[in-house]
Amino acid sequence: MLRTHDLGSLRAEHIGQTVTLAGWVARRRDHGGVAFVDLRDASGVAQVVVREEEVFHGLRNEFVLQVTGTVERRPEGNENPALASGEVEVIADTVVVLNTSDPLPFQIDEHVEVGEEARLKHRYLDMRRPVMARNLRLRSEASRTAREVLHHEGFLEIETPTLTRSTPEGARDFLVPARLAPGSWYALPQSPQLFKQLLQVGGFEKYYQIARCYRDEDFRADRQPEFTQLDIEASFVDQDDIIALGEKLVVALWKLIGVDIPTPIRRMPYAEAMAKYGSDKPDLRFGQELTELTEFFKDTNFGVFKAPYVGAVVMPGGASQPRRTLDAWQEWAKQRGAKGLAYVLIKDDGELAGPVAKNLTDAEREGLAAAVGASNGDCIFFAAGEKTASRALLGAARVEIGHRTGLIQDGEWAFVWVVDAPMFEPAAQAVASGDVAVGAGKWTAVHHAFTSPRPEFMDTFDTDPESALSYAYDIVCNGSELGGGSIRIHQRDVQERVFALMGLDKEEAESKFGFLLEGFKFGAPPHGGIALGWDRVVSFLAGAESIRDVIAFPKSGGGFDPLTSAPGPITPQQRKEAGVDFKPAPKAVKPEDGGEAVAV
Amino acid sequence: MLRTHDLGSLRAEHIGQTVTLAGWVARRRDHGGVAFVDLRDASGVAQVVVREEEVFHGLRNEFVLQVTGTVERRPEGNENPALASGEVEVIADTVVVLNTSDPLPFQIDEHVEVGEEARLKHRYLDMRRPVMARNLRLRSEASRTAREVLHHEGFLEIETPTLTRSTPEGARDFLVPARLAPGSWYALPQSPQLFKQLLQVGGFEKYYQIARCYRDEDFRADRQPEFTQLDIEASFVDQDDIIALGEKLVVALWKLIGVDIPTPIRRMPYAEAMAKYGSDKPDLRFGQELTELTEFFKDTNFGVFKAPYVGAVVMPGGASQPRRTLDAWQEWAKQRGAKGLAYVLIKDDGELAGPVAKNLTDAEREGLAAAVGASNGDCIFFAAGEKTASRALLGAARVEIGHRTGLIQDGEWAFVWVVDAPMFEPAAQAVASGDVAVGAGKWTAVHHAFTSPRPEFMDTFDTDPESALSYAYDIVCNGSELGGGSIRIHQRDVQERVFALMGLDKEEAESKFGFLLEGFKFGAPPHGGIALGWDRVVSFLAGAESIRDVIAFPKSGGGFDPLTSAPGPITPQQRKEAGVDFKPAPKAVKPEDGGEAVAV
Repeated sequence: MLRTHDLGSLRAEHIGQTVTLAGWVARRRDHGGVAFVDLRDASGVAQVVVREEEVFHGLRNEFVLQVTGTVERRPEGNENPALASGEVEVIADTVVVLNTSDPLPFQIDEHVEVGEEARLKHRYLDMRRPVMARNLRLRSEASRTAREVLHHEGFLEIETPTLTRSTPEGARDFLVPARLAPGSWYALPQSPQLFKQLLQVGGFEKYYQIARCYRDEDFRADRQPEFTQLDIEASFVDQDDIIALGEKLVVALWKLIGVDIPTPIRRMPYAEAMAKYGSDKPDLRFGQELTELTEFFKDTNFGVFKAPYVGAVVMPGGASQPRRTLDAWQEWAKQRGAKGLAYVLIKDDGELAGPVAKNLTDAEREGLAAAVGASNGDCIFFAAGEKTASRALLGAARVEIGHRTGLIQDGEWAFVWVVDAPMFEPAAQAVASGDVAVGAGKWTAVHHAFTSPRPEFMDTFDTDPESALSYAYDIVCNGSELGGGSIRIHQRDVQERVFALMGLDKEEAESKFGFLLEGFKFGAPPHGGIALGWDRVVSFLAGAESIRDVIAFPKSGGGFDPLTSAPGPITPQQRKEAGVDFKPAPKAVKPEDGGEAVAV
Repeated sequence: MLRTHDLGSLRAEHIGQTVTLAGWVARRRDHGGVAFVDLRDASGVAQVVVREEEVFHGLRNEFVLQVTGTVERRPEGNENPALASGEVEVIADTVVVLNTSDPLPFQIDEHVEVGEEARLKHRYLDMRRPVMARNLRLRSEASRTAREVLHHEGFLEIETPTLTRSTPEGARDFLVPARLAPGSWYALPQSPQLFKQLLQVGGFEKYYQIARCYRDEDFRADRQPEFTQLDIEASFVDQDDIIALGEKLVVALWKLIGVDIPTPIRRMPYAEAMAKYGSDKPDLRFGQELTELTEFFKDTNFGVFKAPYVGAVVMPGGASQPRRTLDAWQEWAKQRGAKGLAYVLIKDDGELAGPVAKNLTDAEREGLAAAVGASNGDCIFFAAGEKTASRALLGAARVEIGHRTGLIQDGEWAFVWVVDAPMFEPAAQAVASGDVAVGAGKWTAVHHAFTSPRPEFMDTFDTDPESALSYAYDIVCNGSELGGGSIRIHQRDVQERVFALMGLDKEEAESKFGFLLEGFKFGAPPHGGIALGWDRVVSFLAGAESIRDVIAFPKSGGGFDPLTSAPGPITPQQRKEAGVDFKPAPKAVKPEDGGEAVAV
């Protein structure tokens, strides 16, 4: 080692000792022939005193030094209690410059003043900031903690392939040309789903992996083309077992940041979440549940409220919002695809105001506040129309209200399991929200095609898909989904019925998922699992605004890496060798290596 | 849970208890109205007694059962000491068939009778074999052990990207078209090399990762297109530190199989390994070192031995080999590209025999046995010619001798660090051995382009590349390389000199490795690391013949996966969306997302 001690470990007990240290110049202060250098390494900071001007004169920020010297007590009054090593300083005998540094493109301190693109381009400098160092340390600890919990529970860590077959699970696959089987491609997995199920068929009853996954999406905010999930699957389990395991993980993880999560964590049926919170990811840090008013307004004269669904959410104290704020709410709603956001203000004297109020009957005006649980001084926001969209609008308004009114407070944690989600949704709806429908059918899976129906829908899910509930569970924290899972289908015939409903004909099902169906022939056990979005979990633990702040080398928008400039051009030779432009012979021949020679 | 107890956990203490079990039918024996079912789960096997013929009649191998019954002591004389649960059996009250099984494509037992292709196609059945289950359990334990050692040493686990930039490191990259930057490609990393170095620049002084890596090679025997390495890097270290860490890992890992590896592990200079063992991966489980005879034969009359190098290796007892065996050695040598393998037999009376003997002078004949350390009854094999090739031939003969004569014994472990390898080799030589030379220069890196010269060659490595030794170290076990590493270059100018020597001009170096060179500007610390081939390490621990036996879902020859049939065709729509055939506009424009629009 080029050092004898870590900088952050120096204490009064070392006084009088000769030590060798190594680290970066965080700061240099000159003081009449003496320089005080804050030297930083991964463990912390210590003060080094350099007395030779010809030595310290050349030292710049972020130079890498090796310093040999003697530990001394700092002169009285000069201690720095903010520093673990603050009682002592090191009087340098020799200073070796191990490396120099050009002037930095941005300063390395807690406060960020540059844009994210610059931070990512010089990520290695950004990482020297205390907050980034803390975040990646926490990530390492979180992974270790999860592994310990899972080991204790008897789970094995098993690695699954990442050069695999294209089997869309709800997003686009990244593809990799196979040089040795020209015209054929590998796909990078969207998750280890099929492999972890096959591991259950293989008798590994408890599997986990902190797995790299890939989705070629249009990079919505805070998504990454490659991401990490804590992936878990077990045999002979039911929903309660996986939920209990999930809670053990959550408890252990939040303990890392000193937070005790009470268990059992509340469970909420999907239908209730949609009705009360307008979301399958309800933020339960605060109340302000939605109220359905369809019945209340069933005889209304107000045209807007003559709708299949009318609902409301209350903004406490919202009656005092100025007109321009109320106008801004309309803009806010329009950006979400709504026509606007109807509202009624309840003045301090109980009188109703706002453009909607005058369209209401006396009975409606009188009963409204009680019906929605509003008080004087509140604002009531309404949505009317198609039920799903209206609830979604109110749910979004509710969260916005939570933030604007301070009902949502930092440092609070509200967990909930959302259970009993529908098994299927209309395929058109899935496509509209950016997913790839797996089959050509009218219905597609809400969770994924391998999710079992709840037992009571086993006979009817394909004749009455709209009613069927799935054996799925999502863990939601503060209005964000941390992960989800399900009890899977393990019977070949049930899996085939699901594929058929989704419009995958036999041939297509065989071609895409034949190996899973084949596996189900040979004693597949009942099984289920869960996956936690690891980037998201760690960003919550770290209090980071973006998952990019807990990923060492993330991509920026569009999947671009400002550090390496990936993706980039390839050479014509690389392209040729990769077989991208392979033209099959008119008659398909099977290449020696067993790859499939199919033209695309 | 669908069970109350694991099968392998049942003991006499459970006698009298009602238990619910779940598992696979491993075997059924009928015994006049009673069936004995060996039920298997991940924990082990227990015997279930089923008395109702209508129940047990239908049970076939690998059916999945849920059994509720009472634990009883087995009748005296019927205990099975080979089974942990062998004192007891479970008298079934109810048997639920959770899933059936078709007749198996091959039987599930310790002894494999089918080819590997069939095993891989039905890997989930192959995994139920005890040896495969043990191997993957051991792999999980090995990873856990390594993580514990590294955590104890203060290392952080940090994930690095796998969608990155094409930067050849000695093999071909797998490529991934970037849909959002058409015409641009990601590459899958051959190792996290550059990222782990940048993490050092970023101040994470101790990094590790069990990392997935990718090399698009021509799949030599026992290579996989994707593989796993235990990847480690640290700052402010020298060679001794990394070697000590590597030894801690090896000791902890081999302890898993009950083997104590004495430390420190011997270190051997590369030059010595080549001279004495004809290999940079010497198998030290036995002696039989090569003897150089160039000097001995300097005045020889025998034309074959008038060569820049003459060397020999002794096969104990080899004089008794029949003629056809000696002929087979000639074939063996020819398959290695040699002309043959000259030999001299020392008969039991000390007389020399074989076709070479008569070409030797009396002095040569008299001195030969002593010169090579041979005894009566031995065979001396010779190689003469170019030094490297001749030594390689003798080294291979030596290993073959070790196996044939029983000098190499199963269960022995011989570790060695091979150090002080040359920094460069002629590029033509690297290409001949299947690697991709990174630059266009006459010289290419033996280890890789980021390996530091030993300090004493810092000034001369580019003027006298042939002599320069690198700061690299490989850990070799029983003649196989388990891993290797080096102290890296951390100075921008040194790195540029290496690139220049390798024939990467400034522009090319900038385009391929600019981000590393840029990082070196800003206080890069001295650093070094190591990577262990994890599949290889685990296969050694497991005593597996192939790394495929310690990988859950490996590829077979040519990178083909018999299970999923990957790689496979893609649809025209996938191809179109992936942007594979993107034609740039005549004038390159920078797309919005910052990708590079360069035609290829």
